[in-house]
Amino acid sequence: MGEFELIRRHFARGQTGPSVALGIGDDCALLRPSPGLQLAISSDMLVEGRHFFPDVDPAALGHKSLAVNLSDLAAMGARPLGFTLALSLPAADDAWLKAFADGLHALADAHACPLVGGDTTRGPLNICITVFGEVAPERALRRDAAKAGDDLWLSGCTGEARLALERLRGTPWATVATGDEALCRQRLERPTPRLALGMALAGLAHAAIDLSDGLAGDLGHILAASGVGAEIDRAALPVAPALQALSETHRLECLLQGGDDYELLFTAPQDVRQAVLAAAEISGTPVHRIGRITADRGLRLLGADGLPKDLRARSWDHFAPGSDPVS
Amino acid sequence: MGEFELIRRHFARGQTGPSVALGIGDDCALLRPSPGLQLAISSDMLVEGRHFFPDVDPAALGHKSLAVNLSDLAAMGARPLGFTLALSLPAADDAWLKAFADGLHALADAHACPLVGGDTTRGPLNICITVFGEVAPERALRRDAAKAGDDLWLSGCTGEARLALERLRGTPWATVATGDEALCRQRLERPTPRLALGMALAGLAHAAIDLSDGLAGDLGHILAASGVGAEIDRAALPVAPALQALSETHRLECLLQGGDDYELLFTAPQDVRQAVLAAAEISGTPVHRIGRITADRGLRLLGADGLPKDLRARSWDHFAPGSDPVS
Repeated sequence: MGEFELIRRHFARGQTGPSVALGIGDDCALLRPSPGLQLAISSDMLVEGRHFFPDVDPAALGHKSLAVNLSDLAAMGARPLGFTLALSLPAADDAWLKAFADGLHALADAHACPLVGGDTTRGPLNICITVFGEVAPERALRRDAAKAGDDLWLSGCTGEARLALERLRGTPWATVATGDEALCRQRLERPTPRLALGMALAGLAHAAIDLSDGLAGDLGHILAASGVGAEIDRAALPVAPALQALSETHRLECLLQGGDDYELLFTAPQDVRQAVLAAAEISGTPVHRIGRITADRGLRLLGADGLPKDLRARSWDHFAPGSDPVS
Repeated sequence: MGEFELIRRHFARGQTGPSVALGIGDDCALLRPSPGLQLAISSDMLVEGRHFFPDVDPAALGHKSLAVNLSDLAAMGARPLGFTLALSLPAADDAWLKAFADGLHALADAHACPLVGGDTTRGPLNICITVFGEVAPERALRRDAAKAGDDLWLSGCTGEARLALERLRGTPWATVATGDEALCRQRLERPTPRLALGMALAGLAHAAIDLSDGLAGDLGHILAASGVGAEIDRAALPVAPALQALSETHRLECLLQGGDDYELLFTAPQDVRQAVLAAAEISGTPVHRIGRITADRGLRLLGADGLPKDLRARSWDHFAPGSDPVS
């Protein structure tokens, strides 16, 4: 048995589920989609030095590699069916691989989303996961479905992952109380895909996106696709305790241009506010109504002083040097 | 617009098809599988220096990256629906990207298999394609379905791609007539996925696999999964003109341990021989009956002298140093 056959053994656990007709080990995996539902597909590639640091905890990396893909399913309101993993590795480190596989499978099991196939090769560390889910055609949460007058909602809160990243980089302004340090690191390294909320919102919300590149930039994708604008009320933005000590400039940078939040940002008609709150309750996910969709294009932040500020809708580029502060 | 947004433009051509409800640009792509069919999924990762040389023609690389995945669909008897592309690139070379995308899209168009989503990031060159197809549950060509007494069939012929690889490496025994050089290179760099044959064989053949790692090794996967053995008749193996000048030892190495053949190897009951030939005719794909499945385990080569030789069922490891000659 070769080195790479051993590697595959960490991943091929004979996992199946009601949707899996044939798992790992043939030319293709075979899934059984439910009749009448559409298949939702997302693929993300994670590269060392860009999406994670070389010394990252492998169990956390296994978790995050799948979490960022599941988050895309959540943003469509889809139910997970399974995923494939393609992995390029410089060498077969058994302990590293076991930890990575454990982190990956724990999250997969929690969401009944089994590994059904993939590929393993030698090369620079690269993790490519493609995830499959299903959703009723008329219930999918698309980016182009926001309507003027919609409420703008956010699950959880943003900015802690960005603060953790700045801490790891040693950025001077990134101060945090000792008790919040581990929490921020958890948000960066083990994001929670909001699948239950996404499924509860399917058919209820209009548009949705998951926040990977920062609230302002990702909201910009909804606005561009839907041909609308938005206002965010500064006072309505939830602020995690870890961000309290920052200056307002840096706090806003974390809140709006954070990246790696993996929260859901969604729009819904005003007349379903109670239903949205019920969906949040059922799914055990906090939500905040942070603003509204407008017919006027552009993204405006309404400050605590009630005056609008222009917000450049830009994204946080992972590991890129510098980032424009919010104007 | 950023550099990577420009890259994405090479790939996002607004391609859709009857199976695509939502293509590139949202959190997920949405496909419409046909009612009652199963979804066939395969994922392959190609890494520079392992699966291709750094100076490879980018158009050929685009073709091959998709072809190796479509070949997996062919080996299940599945019809292509679409694919995702995750691409890690060290830099954005516009001419390289255009050629790569052209090669990719040309093959995708030929098989009505549109690009529906994916990811782009900066990093060492890495190409991960995940392809989706559909097939009726009882018609899928699985590796575990070979039966003792089945005929063993091969589409096309094997060994030319391996010969081209040895030529590129400057291997002394790898001599080839001038007229055959380009043909062998074509087989290595632009393999033809046998999709029409695979679909014609679905429900007719028992087991199938596509040949990526050499005939002997890949046949070994069918034998192991099905719990059977096989005999190959040396005299029945098709030999391309380019291989005629080789010694029998090196010719057999190319034929049986070639790698990168992307032909279909399949088993079918003896009483459907005429139907198999008709499927080959309809799909415009030559097939040869090269042996049979046996209840006795193991893989035996019946020589021109009528005497069996033991064949170690091993695979060709891309770019790995050395390879045991066939015993």
